[in-house]
Amino acid sequence: MFRPIVLMALASLACAAPPALMPLPVRVDPRPGYLVIDGAFAAKATGVTDPRLNAAIRRFTARLSRQTGLLFTGSDVPVLKVECAARGLENATLGEDESYTLDVAPSGAVLKAPAIAGALHGLETFSQLVVPGAAGFEAGAVHIEDRPRFPWRGLMIDSSRHWMPLDVIERNLDAMAAVKLNVFHWHLSDDQGFRVESKRFPKLQELGSDGHYYTQEELRHIVGYARDRGIRVVAEFDIPGHTLSWLAAYPELASEAGPFSIGRTWGIFDPVLDPTRDQTYEFLDSFIGEMTSIFPDPYFHIGGDEVNGKSWDSNPRILAFTREHKLDGPKGLQAYFNQRLSKILEKYHRTVIGWDEVLHPDLPTATMIQSWRGNASLAEAAAKGHRGILSWGYYLDHLRPASYHYAVDPLGGPAAQLAPDKAANILGGEACMWAEYVSSETVDSRIWPRLAAIAERFWSPKEVTDVDSMYSRLAVISRWLEWTGVRHRANYGPMLDRLTGGHPAEPVHVLADAVEALGLGQGRGRGVKYTSLMALNRMVDAARPESESVRVLELAARRGNPADLILLRDEFTRWAANDALFQPLAEDNALLAELKPVSKDLAYLGTVGLALLNHSAIPSDLDAQLTRIARPQAELRLAAFRPIKVLADAAKAK
Amino acid sequence: MFRPIVLMALASLACAAPPALMPLPVRVDPRPGYLVIDGAFAAKATGVTDPRLNAAIRRFTARLSRQTGLLFTGSDVPVLKVECAARGLENATLGEDESYTLDVAPSGAVLKAPAIAGALHGLETFSQLVVPGAAGFEAGAVHIEDRPRFPWRGLMIDSSRHWMPLDVIERNLDAMAAVKLNVFHWHLSDDQGFRVESKRFPKLQELGSDGHYYTQEELRHIVGYARDRGIRVVAEFDIPGHTLSWLAAYPELASEAGPFSIGRTWGIFDPVLDPTRDQTYEFLDSFIGEMTSIFPDPYFHIGGDEVNGKSWDSNPRILAFTREHKLDGPKGLQAYFNQRLSKILEKYHRTVIGWDEVLHPDLPTATMIQSWRGNASLAEAAAKGHRGILSWGYYLDHLRPASYHYAVDPLGGPAAQLAPDKAANILGGEACMWAEYVSSETVDSRIWPRLAAIAERFWSPKEVTDVDSMYSRLAVISRWLEWTGVRHRANYGPMLDRLTGGHPAEPVHVLADAVEALGLGQGRGRGVKYTSLMALNRMVDAARPESESVRVLELAARRGNPADLILLRDEFTRWAANDALFQPLAEDNALLAELKPVSKDLAYLGTVGLALLNHSAIPSDLDAQLTRIARPQAELRLAAFRPIKVLADAAKAK
Repeated sequence: MFRPIVLMALASLACAAPPALMPLPVRVDPRPGYLVIDGAFAAKATGVTDPRLNAAIRRFTARLSRQTGLLFTGSDVPVLKVECAARGLENATLGEDESYTLDVAPSGAVLKAPAIAGALHGLETFSQLVVPGAAGFEAGAVHIEDRPRFPWRGLMIDSSRHWMPLDVIERNLDAMAAVKLNVFHWHLSDDQGFRVESKRFPKLQELGSDGHYYTQEELRHIVGYARDRGIRVVAEFDIPGHTLSWLAAYPELASEAGPFSIGRTWGIFDPVLDPTRDQTYEFLDSFIGEMTSIFPDPYFHIGGDEVNGKSWDSNPRILAFTREHKLDGPKGLQAYFNQRLSKILEKYHRTVIGWDEVLHPDLPTATMIQSWRGNASLAEAAAKGHRGILSWGYYLDHLRPASYHYAVDPLGGPAAQLAPDKAANILGGEACMWAEYVSSETVDSRIWPRLAAIAERFWSPKEVTDVDSMYSRLAVISRWLEWTGVRHRANYGPMLDRLTGGHPAEPVHVLADAVEALGLGQGRGRGVKYTSLMALNRMVDAARPESESVRVLELAARRGNPADLILLRDEFTRWAANDALFQPLAEDNALLAELKPVSKDLAYLGTVGLALLNHSAIPSDLDAQLTRIARPQAELRLAAFRPIKVLADAAKAK
Repeated sequence: MFRPIVLMALASLACAAPPALMPLPVRVDPRPGYLVIDGAFAAKATGVTDPRLNAAIRRFTARLSRQTGLLFTGSDVPVLKVECAARGLENATLGEDESYTLDVAPSGAVLKAPAIAGALHGLETFSQLVVPGAAGFEAGAVHIEDRPRFPWRGLMIDSSRHWMPLDVIERNLDAMAAVKLNVFHWHLSDDQGFRVESKRFPKLQELGSDGHYYTQEELRHIVGYARDRGIRVVAEFDIPGHTLSWLAAYPELASEAGPFSIGRTWGIFDPVLDPTRDQTYEFLDSFIGEMTSIFPDPYFHIGGDEVNGKSWDSNPRILAFTREHKLDGPKGLQAYFNQRLSKILEKYHRTVIGWDEVLHPDLPTATMIQSWRGNASLAEAAAKGHRGILSWGYYLDHLRPASYHYAVDPLGGPAAQLAPDKAANILGGEACMWAEYVSSETVDSRIWPRLAAIAERFWSPKEVTDVDSMYSRLAVISRWLEWTGVRHRANYGPMLDRLTGGHPAEPVHVLADAVEALGLGQGRGRGVKYTSLMALNRMVDAARPESESVRVLELAARRGNPADLILLRDEFTRWAANDALFQPLAEDNALLAELKPVSKDLAYLGTVGLALLNHSAIPSDLDAQLTRIARPQAELRLAAFRPIKVLADAAKAK
């Protein structure tokens, strides 16, 4: 029922905690002994020197100081030598050599890489090796060889639906680099906001952003910040749909009569760009020219998703154009739009990427496809000669467990049937963080730590699929990632404390640890009519997508050894007692009121759990109750039902 | 045994949580009803307008948004009107009018102040009023009148012994303003580091700072940052002692032959400035001239503490000078030094402040005294016509409980006997955060939340002394202060997780909640030979000076109602079981090894606690064991003994 590797990982807690590496390197050969990490630690580039590498070593050293609490006194003798054979390219580039080897011995460590990209990755691996040991901090001796499976390993962040200030982007770039991701796909415009300063079309940010946009200087700063961390920035301006914020500023671009205003709700809106007028292309040519001067990456994302065609079909002028050009309805019209757009981007030496809706027989094969509606479109595109990446299965905003995403492979499903030369068109994948239900305060906890598991899928060998091993390492990596600055753990306590106005309220924390937030498509937004101006300050916003403590209890319930039983009894007792303490807090408290039934259910689960441990009588309708409790309440899942179900099923099986 | 006000505070959790005001205003008259705080909230200056006030309102609104999670949409109709009658002075100034009145009604709120200082304070009070209620966030209707008891309410931060980066200073200024403190005393030089850029004497920072110093631009930024928050910055350059970092750069200033190097340990070093040579005064004149161009405050701190005179007494040339000028040994020589220094500062229109060692019959009465060695010197100075402030009793680095500091009154002790005109010389007090045993990571948890209790002592009427009321409000204020950015709570979890290298380790958290860190003079540094280059990454650095959870248990043990018994039993059970889980974690872990006996003692306390609750047999040597356990171990106090002692004493009394 449980796999040996978990037992090993848990048993290993009985001696010095082993390092948790994520993504797992291609080859890890432990050697005897360990390297002491103390105040005399220093790292130095001993091969080519390069300001980018030196800055990376400084950042690495500063973070290792935070991670250990050690004060490095700046020794001249490097404990870690970084031998980079060549500088590599000026910008992070698709397909560049990202490999490295790392040798740690008691006498010192050597990181070798053919180019800077690999050196950056090796520094992250070294950080993960450093753990407390018998003599202080240490890195176990080891020989590591490593290189990525896929060259395109990305995260998309939507800065439009909720505004993401610059520091959100920066800290997430730091954390991305920590797990060896190399593409930041930036969704910069959508119905809810146009987030970029245009000097040619300033009304875009003046009327389309509520004042929340990145200046060109800030955009260039982020491009450099990412480059320094080995990350490419792929900008997306989603057209011709998802463009209400453009139309609020320039209604003359629209497929119907305006005026328009910024979207405050979400979904698919009818008004889109008018693909039949030359002015549209003149505008886009000028705008894209401006943006390509800011974003140097050779790939440029044009969106292209969710155009329902209604506006085009109800405009006689557009219908006439479609007929005249013998286009196949709205699909054909969008293909026509994409063809003209491709020519513009070609002029600026950019390769087009689009969401899988752009796939059409008329689409140039140079266009790259990002599959989100399923993995069939990815295989289809690859078979037709398009290069592509997978995002279906990696939608972080659905708030599914890490194991769900971990099981999705860019080369899985229909792609597994492709001939090798076609399969080679599949470059990797991208996790997507859509921002309907996240704010700058909550976005980190929706990205991390689950993205680290996805990063492993993109980097590590295909055979690395052990879920229990992944979870036992993810728990450590989640804490380690805090040293990068992401706030997925840091914001949890304050958001819970806010629910009682700062009054100490342990019962709220007990409840929060037992629930999981539901995401888009999983229960979020059902029964609540959201707008982008609503507060995201409820339990569902503070709660994690996946409860680490419930997972531990579920494992304990499966295993059932004496220590597990103590743990389960302790927690069930707390649950059973918690409701009596919780209900008074929820009186006259609008934020806690919706949790009253959830808290009652938790007490029920605690009581039943104790009965199951005691082998005493359990309610005859337990199955029905568990089924009911598993359903969403207050946009939450009461995850606590899972260990109870394990025990109940085991009791039945006897 | 317990006071009604605590019961009230705890009972009040049974309905909407009441606001916690700290410092308590002079007058608080609750009125019926409440003002709703929702997305339409806006605050606006309706009296004089002033960029400083407008910036304060923007900061207040942004923090209220964080505190509530609400997105304020920028309504034009202010819900809170801020009527400031006059702009007040350009800089925060000693003795300016800091009063305000605040009226909250269901229809809106009005904050009135004669000048900006009071308006800033009133905004903080308003923030503290906002709590979750039946309809969402609300502020209860109230009429508040408020003004400070003392005009000088300060915090001193030592940036020398450990380097405190700019963001540490900024966030602590924000938190100081939140509890209405108005003086930031900045200890900028000491043996361990000279932290200021001098353009006239650049070797000071080049050779005296290890590269850790504030540029003049940064210093000016902090002066402005503080001024915007109603806080004066009083710079301290400690002379003639505590000057190794000066002498490392300019050995020619020394009272003996060099060379000298930056202090890596602490205490009193013999080498000090040579007060007999004109060059010393020429240097100081030039340096002070440079610094007064940066720090506009009319007060300037010259330190003057802990000069042991040994170096002067062993230098024949200095001895000859002392004889020649008929000076009374080293004390007289220091008085001579202070007199010449006073003339220099007079030239720059500055009033001198010194630590109480500077008190001497020859000292000009214009010199202000900061008493730290006891409160007798303050009364003595005040009687002689010196103005003074109290720091004795407010040494945060001693890590004493908030109640200890709360009981110290600037007008208590010998000062209580002063005639009113002499007592008026006592302007207030300053808490001191000396930095021998703190880093930028730990300093916040040594300042907060205890400083809020001291701030109440300085601001609120003398009669406000109820300790239980203070603690019940402090628990809320501690969490509220997080929204200002101070990291006293945020750094706790990551520092604990570091002890296991990020492996989830609940037993370490259980132990950490049960212990308290010991400060200077209380156990820290006994048996461990510290240097300023050592890591501050142990349990004693993560642990809090005062355990909130143990305090709750102690109250529960005193009270003993049924809910309390459940709480106590739950916690004692956890303590009793914790050691078995903790010991394996501590194997081969240098950071946890020292905690093994502490963890064993916690298990013992848990077991005894359960026996006491069960009225079963308790160990015959319990008293001796509790006495032993109360002693420092690993520079910690196992606070958990306190509730056990309460129960044991009660059992004995029966």
